[in-house]
Parts: sequence; C-alpha cells; structure tokens
Amino acid sequence: MRSIYLDNNATTRVDPEVIQAMLPFFADQFGNPSSAHAFGSSIRGAVRKARRQLQALIGAEFDHEIVFTSGGTESDNAAILSALEVMSDRTEIVTSAVEHSAVLTLCAHLEKTRGVKVHRIPVDRHGRLDLDAYGTALTPRVAIVSIMWANNETGTIFPVAKLAEMAKKTGALFHTDAVQAVGKVPMDLQSTAIDMLSLSGHKFHGPKGIGALYLRRGVPFSSLIKGGHQERDRRAGTENTAGIVGLGKAAELALKSTDDETRLKSLRDRLENGILQRVPGAFITGDPLKRLPNTASIAFRHVEGEGMLLLLNRCGIACSSGSACSSGSLEPSHVLRAMDIPDAVAHGTIRFSFSRDSCDEDVDRVLEVIPGIVEKLRDDSRFGRVAKASGPARSGES
Amino acid sequence: MRSIYLDNNATTRVDPEVIQAMLPFFADQFGNPSSAHAFGSSIRGAVRKARRQLQALIGAEFDHEIVFTSGGTESDNAAILSALEVMSDRTEIVTSAVEHSAVLTLCAHLEKTRGVKVHRIPVDRHGRLDLDAYGTALTPRVAIVSIMWANNETGTIFPVAKLAEMAKKTGALFHTDAVQAVGKVPMDLQSTAIDMLSLSGHKFHGPKGIGALYLRRGVPFSSLIKGGHQERDRRAGTENTAGIVGLGKAAELALKSTDDETRLKSLRDRLENGILQRVPGAFITGDPLKRLPNTASIAFRHVEGEGMLLLLNRCGIACSSGSACSSGSLEPSHVLRAMDIPDAVAHGTIRFSFSRDSCDEDVDRVLEVIPGIVEKLRDDSRFGRVAKASGPARSGES
Repeated sequence: MRSIYLDNNATTRVDPEVIQAMLPFFADQFGNPSSAHAFGSSIRGAVRKARRQLQALIGAEFDHEIVFTSGGTESDNAAILSALEVMSDRTEIVTSAVEHSAVLTLCAHLEKTRGVKVHRIPVDRHGRLDLDAYGTALTPRVAIVSIMWANNETGTIFPVAKLAEMAKKTGALFHTDAVQAVGKVPMDLQSTAIDMLSLSGHKFHGPKGIGALYLRRGVPFSSLIKGGHQERDRRAGTENTAGIVGLGKAAELALKSTDDETRLKSLRDRLENGILQRVPGAFITGDPLKRLPNTASIAFRHVEGEGMLLLLNRCGIACSSGSACSSGSLEPSHVLRAMDIPDAVAHGTIRFSFSRDSCDEDVDRVLEVIPGIVEKLRDDSRFGRVAKASGPARSGES
Repeated sequence: MRSIYLDNNATTRVDPEVIQAMLPFFADQFGNPSSAHAFGSSIRGAVRKARRQLQALIGAEFDHEIVFTSGGTESDNAAILSALEVMSDRTEIVTSAVEHSAVLTLCAHLEKTRGVKVHRIPVDRHGRLDLDAYGTALTPRVAIVSIMWANNETGTIFPVAKLAEMAKKTGALFHTDAVQAVGKVPMDLQSTAIDMLSLSGHKFHGPKGIGALYLRRGVPFSSLIKGGHQERDRRAGTENTAGIVGLGKAAELALKSTDDETRLKSLRDRLENGILQRVPGAFITGDPLKRLPNTASIAFRHVEGEGMLLLLNRCGIACSSGSACSSGSLEPSHVLRAMDIPDAVAHGTIRFSFSRDSCDEDVDRVLEVIPGIVEKLRDDSRFGRVAKASGPARSGES
C-alpha cells in the first residue's frame, strides 16, 4: 500500500537537493565558521549564501536582516521577549486568539509571571480577525503585536501588511509568525512595515531544527540566547552550518517553484469539492477567499476526528486533526473554539495539507476511501450512542 | 598538502556513522514525532533510543532527565534563567571567572538588567578554582551555581562533584557546562549532586545545532523556549529528529571509545614534550594534573599567536588561540587574564585540541614545523620592534 502524506503543515519531507547541499557540512566542511583557520573560513561563505537565499525568498532588503535560529518557536519567543525588553516603558502585547502555541503559551506565561497585559483579538466564524477589536487594542502601551501570517489549522491568511501599518502608527513593534506562509505565498517584506518575522525550515522541505528570525534593520533587539558573538550578537551558539545551508537551499527551491501555488490550489480544491459532493454533512472551515493554497480543513458532522485519522491511517493516508503540537489532546483546538465552532463539530474536523510532493493520485485515493470511513463512523456512532453533534452551516478545525 | 585539524575543542568532524544514522530522518522518516499517524509514531522510538544513548554516556538515572536543545549555549541559558525563575526568593549566581561566554555574557546581562548579584570565583595561575572564595560565596541567597566541568581553552578540569555537594548544602541548584567534557571523560551523574548539565553534539563528533540539558528528576524547571508540549513541556518546538538521532549515535560511539582517553593523552603529551624540548621559552598552561586528555594549551614567549596561527595554517595545520567564539578579537582571552597571565604572554598562546581522528603523523608534522615558525616570528619581532613580552615561569591560554 502506497503511503500518502497529506500532513505537510505539520512537517515536510526534506528535499533530496537539500540533503545533498547539507552533506558536505557534516563531513569535509565540518569547521566552526567562527574559527580563523581554513576549516572555518570556507564555511562562512556558505552561511552568507544561505542568508541571501532566504533574503530573496521573503523579499528582505538586506541579507543581515536574517538571523538564524533553531526554528519557528525560538524565533517567536525571541521576538516577543526582545520587544518587552527593548520597549521597557510598554507592557502590553496584542496577539490573536488563534496563534500557534509558540506565541500563546509564552503570552500566558508573561501574563502570569510578569503582569504583562495580553490582548487576544478574536476572529469570526471564518477565522478572520476582528479589525475593530484590533484597532481598539492598539495603544501607546503596546510593546509588540504578534499576529500570524497564516493559520496552521485552517490556512486562513491575515492581512499582516495592513495590521503592521496600523501598529506602526502607535509605535508598537510588529511581529508575524509566518511559519506556515513562508514558501507557500509570495512575500516582499521590504515593502511592508513588518519589523520581525518567524520562519521554520521543516515547513518548506528544509531540515528540522533550523529556522530564522527576520529582523528589520534598525529595529532594537535583545537576544534570547546569549553567549558568543554569532549572528552579530543576535543569536549566540555555534552556527548549525549544515542546517543553515539546507535552509538556504530549501528557500531557493521554494522561490523557484512559484507555479506550485496554482497546482496546489487545484489539488486542494478538487479534494474539497470531491468531499463536499460525496459526503453529506461536510463543511470547509477557514476563510473561503484568503487561505493558504495547500490547506484544506474540513469538518464532518457526527464523526470523531480521532476515529477518522485512525481509519485513514489504516488506508495509508496521513493527515491530522488540529496541529501536531496539540495532538494527543482530546480537546478541540483553541483555533476552532475561537471560531465559535461547537465542540461536537470541531471534534470531527480534519486537516489535509499538501506540498509539492503531493499529486492527483493522492486526492483520488482520499476521495475513494473517505465516504466509506465517514459512513462507518456515523453508523458506529448511531448504534453505539446517540449522535449529539449538531453544528452550524460551516464549521472547522485547524 | 594534507590538512591537519587540531582544533577539536572548537568543533569536530561528524562521524560517518552519525551521518548514516541521521540520513533516514531527512528522507523516508521525515515525520513530526508529535503527529498521531504512522509517519510520526515511527520517529518517536528513534528519539527515545537517542535519549537512552545519551543517558548511558553521562550516567543519568532516567532517560527522561535528558532534554534535547539546540546546543550548549541554549542549555546554559536555559539552566540559569530557569533557576532564577523557580528560586524566585534567591537573587545571586555563583560562577567562575573562566566560564564560556554562554554563561558569562548571560550573567553580565542579568547583573545589568535585573540587578542579579554575580559572584565570579577566581582561579589561580594554573586555572584552578579558588575553593575558599567559592565557599564564602555560597549563601542561602544563591539561586544557582554554574561552574564548567572542564575549561575549553586550557582543558583544566574542575571538581564539579565536590562543588555540587557544597552548593547543595545551601539549597542552591548546581549546573555545569560540560560541553568540553562530555565524551572525553567518564561521567556518572547519578552518583553526584549535579542538578543540571549542558552538552553539545558537535564537540564529540555529532552534528551542530543539537545538544541537551540534563535535568535531574525532581529539579524544578521553567522552560526557556515556550510553546508546544515537546520534551515534556521543558523545550518547545518541533523536535530536530535527525539531529537528535545523530547526537544519540555520537554518544554511543563516544561511550564505546573509552580507550581513546589514553591514546589522546599520549598524543597530547608527545606534542607538549616535543615542543618544550624544541622551542625555548614555551610553557604549558592549565592544571598539570587535572586536564582534559585532548587539550594542549601552550604559551610561546615573544610571539604573536595570530602570526603563529597564520603560519601554521599555511602549513595546513588548524588550531586556535583562545576559543573560536572569541576569535577575531585581538584581546587576550578572559581565561588567560583570570589566570593572571600577562597579556604579552597570553598573546602568544596556542591551543591544540585532539580527537579520535587525530594520529601520530599530526603530532610529527607540528613538531617538524613549529620551531621554524617560532624562530621566524621572533626574528621578525626582534628586527621590527623591541620584544616587550616577559612573562612568568608558567603561562597560558585556553
């Protein structure tokens, strides 16, 4: 049985070209780029090249605006904690109710331990930010706004350029967790007012354990991890050179595959339409107009998502209910709750996320098996216990 | 010309077996270990195996005492910042004057921004800790002691087991930066009172960008990087599975090569004795009795270390003056200064650090070229300007 991987928002396969690019930096070119001798100096050029590859992908003005980190979560933490330190006369954070846990868990901790006031801007039932609430929360007390570029569960895209402009007027720094957006949608950061952006290699066919923080030139910054002078004193610790080179190559490949957006969207749409046609009581969640091209979040009434994952898994199909980071929990995700989707419906929401590895046959196979799986689970539920779920016309997971 | 790499305290070549162990986790086994489906579950076993391989290397009692991080610097930062948070009624840190910048830079920052009092325990001219000063600094105001297991520049080994016992009596947590010691000297943490220990993969033939914090069971902890529930809520962010597997394999290989200690020591001693015999005005720095088996730190009077590195580099020999993290600076290292070695002598101090890749021919080649290099530099110095340097009978770098 062929394995079908449709969980690319959780992580992606490392591209073979990325692996090839990394290999020399484990073996012959293993030097420490901070070393003065030949073993070190040859590595520095490779790190610089990777910085430029990332710069090109996100449209940064300068390559030194890229700070390599260990991944998206570290970048998110670094951005928010730095802002509170460098803007010490400001003690509030504005974020959304649907951020990744890398932002929300940190904010909750700061609220509890440091008395920081956190504004969690609500979203509507399509996952769209409440712009009025956002405008109201923006005051000169806000040190940083952290709003994601695209939601990991529903794929809903936020108007970050506009949000950054609004934040700028109050003097707050603007950070965006773009972990799910980088490599999937075009970016031109230099034309925006975004101060900081987090990205992660393994979400676009790069390796795990490497990411970056975009830090606009001139934005004050205090490093999260302190020690040696690496990354211009913005991130201490010996550079993960193989990871950096792999991340650079992944960025180059992502920039090249610009036609992928259209192809992914067509795969995604065929999956969604196929399911809506074949399965009664199925609904798309997230913003119907502004969504990532690769993400389908589909709610199935009267079905337990965990059961669906299990049966799909038996058919060799990997996808997810909620983010990988919260899997194992039986609670509906905070994203679906923020969208005011009843728990009973949220429980039956599945995320299919595509990548350039995905193909038509993957969609065919899902469409082939999913009606039977839903029917079986609904039958089990009908005979086993009363189906309590009864949701809105649209529902969701993320 | 064959390249000779004697800068293994800066970084080591990744072992081919480590690379082989990592490769599947970039390709077929690329899943996110937090995912519920088959792509995720197969990875979890590999992560557990790596945790046990590290547990065995450092002699931890439980495998869950290993928390994977992005490296030594992150581990050091995490340990110290956590202690200040969980021991909130204590506001002092005890460390040494010769710690790695991962500890000292953070401490200086905490002193400046949070009013933390930092005791930097001095060392003698052999780099040995002043135990009286240490005892005096230990009061119930101390949240954490952070003293390195072995110094990166001189190789001097500190009596961490004893220091931890002393710290325990005052209720302070004890952390050790063992980045230079893990894989080079035997460890049995469960028989000590050490609460936390930092290690880094690339110092013992593992990959860069991966390390661990040993966290004794029951020790209170607050994570540095917050977000998802990875690593039992002690380190958020998608696990760097390839890096973790590589680190585990490196630990297994280090544990196997226990006879390497003797071999390395014999290479090191032959280099040192050979240089002392051939070059007048050369001295060994660091503790003559308790040093890492792989590290030779040698001071050459009336010589500029940078000039020596350059000429050695031209002969294909890579070594260092001071740590890689402070290279590029013309200041003598803080370690040599703490050992009260005059700047003029400290400037002429070179570190040769061996690994299991090193061989007799490496030593032969250094002994062949170094007398001529020192003579040339001294001649240049004599004719170019008055040699001002005049140091003690023993001197050092680290």
